[in-house]
Amino acid sequence: MRTIVIGGAQLGPIQKADSREAVVERMIALLDQAKGAGCDLVVFPELCLTTFFPRWYMEDQVEVNAWFEREMPNVATAPLFAVAREAGIAISFGYAELTPDGRHFNTSIMTDRAGNIIGKYRKVHLPGHSEYDTERAFQHLEKRYFEPGDLGFPVWRNLDAIMGMCICNDRRWPEVYRVMGLQGVELIILGYNTPSVNSQMVDEGPEKRLYHSELVMKAGAYQNATWVVGIAKAGVEDGHPLLGGSIIVDPNGYVVARAAEEEEDELIVHVCDMDVCTFGKTTIFDFARHRRIEHYQRICAQTGAEVPER
Amino acid sequence: MRTIVIGGAQLGPIQKADSREAVVERMIALLDQAKGAGCDLVVFPELCLTTFFPRWYMEDQVEVNAWFEREMPNVATAPLFAVAREAGIAISFGYAELTPDGRHFNTSIMTDRAGNIIGKYRKVHLPGHSEYDTERAFQHLEKRYFEPGDLGFPVWRNLDAIMGMCICNDRRWPEVYRVMGLQGVELIILGYNTPSVNSQMVDEGPEKRLYHSELVMKAGAYQNATWVVGIAKAGVEDGHPLLGGSIIVDPNGYVVARAAEEEEDELIVHVCDMDVCTFGKTTIFDFARHRRIEHYQRICAQTGAEVPER
Repeated sequence: MRTIVIGGAQLGPIQKADSREAVVERMIALLDQAKGAGCDLVVFPELCLTTFFPRWYMEDQVEVNAWFEREMPNVATAPLFAVAREAGIAISFGYAELTPDGRHFNTSIMTDRAGNIIGKYRKVHLPGHSEYDTERAFQHLEKRYFEPGDLGFPVWRNLDAIMGMCICNDRRWPEVYRVMGLQGVELIILGYNTPSVNSQMVDEGPEKRLYHSELVMKAGAYQNATWVVGIAKAGVEDGHPLLGGSIIVDPNGYVVARAAEEEEDELIVHVCDMDVCTFGKTTIFDFARHRRIEHYQRICAQTGAEVPER
Repeated sequence: MRTIVIGGAQLGPIQKADSREAVVERMIALLDQAKGAGCDLVVFPELCLTTFFPRWYMEDQVEVNAWFEREMPNVATAPLFAVAREAGIAISFGYAELTPDGRHFNTSIMTDRAGNIIGKYRKVHLPGHSEYDTERAFQHLEKRYFEPGDLGFPVWRNLDAIMGMCICNDRRWPEVYRVMGLQGVELIILGYNTPSVNSQMVDEGPEKRLYHSELVMKAGAYQNATWVVGIAKAGVEDGHPLLGGSIIVDPNGYVVARAAEEEEDELIVHVCDMDVCTFGKTTIFDFARHRRIEHYQRICAQTGAEVPER
């Protein structure tokens, strides 16, 4: 048994007017709760220090940059790192990253038990669009405010396991899980902010969207024999409902813990044995024995679909 | 609307002693039923002309070859092709193929409405093992009797849709759906013979195995915005139970038809609109806009997992 007690810290809504300091206080309260529950690792959502600002159309880059962090830890988040270090709990959370050379990424980090950042990931699959879209029920401007991540999908050894990260829309892409699976990943951590309504199909409500969210995480877990922890922001942010539905999925693709809250902050906890990954990785998904890369080449050679001629 | 009325023809068990002629009679009975239901296309299982012979260990190649077809159509299957042609129904089924130059494949074919074979697929992901395995509850010798398919995952235009095929264990591999998705596939047809028990973990029974079977087909359908039709052999063959659980999955990843029979032949029917694929293919899974192949290269460059150093 290589057990990691994982806490999934789903956050309720963060309004546009809420300060980072107020959010960090809420995160620390969840961390305290996690300490009481014996957690080794606590996972927070994507862009968790502020409201989900890509729903707002902005033209002024100064206004945009106000949503970004120039360093991590910084003044606002230092107390969170201090509490985590003190408790010996590894943490992971997402934030908007502005680099010293002026680049913008949708980023998440992972620390070890000592509060050192040992892993950084920048979101590769940015959903949405880059210009104001009059056809949509609301805007989703991630392609405007971020550039695609440039770090790939690395994995790190942490807490005696092999861990990787992805963010939100990344979870819908089987390539993401597979690239980490090919590095022996045992735990994939991801945060998300998913609107409860499809901006391009307003009759697609929360039920269908929760189904899709779970489906892709369960399949990614099973097909790579890895734990998957997907942690959401939930509730109504400035009039815009978010999906919630945070889950912990085992390497057989079963949900073993699920958030119930639709508005309040909530911690879900599960004792995860990393050795459960071994059976799948050595039998049905023993990649070395079964994969046939000579027939996969389109996946890496071709971005869009190429439809056969009539 | 581009509707195709799809019939999924799940077969009950085929015993070792059953002749191909007897099986073809059963297939024709299902085809007659499909004609009455207005079907345009009928899908039969993998290796559907005989019992699932890879569960038997054989050393005599003459004995092995007796399970293979040297041409298609042949004397045994000609009546099936004739009935399908007469009814104007396209069909797909699987069989063991022995080529003129002595190669062995686990193959499936697809015909047009005129009974012409317009597509052939040879199973790429052969599960199991090649030598007698004393550790298993029963044998699964596909790696002994077949070589991996050499045709990749092509698609064809048929019945005004873009169709592809895979077979059984192929359905567990996201690469399979994606390679066809990158060719604009709208309907993936697959047959399977899945034991109800995991030969390497006997407490993994039918419930979990059905869950995994559905999970991978639902995820493959959703993530590529394609219909998926998975048709099983069911029931007890020579003392070995098969899973059954044939389904038709829509491009949103929902099961829209499911077989109920566990022993008898059974036809499931659904009216499938190929235009339902368009929304996913042009929004969340618009590959050209969202895929980032620069970060996928491991998938095509590396067969087995490469674990980071300690």
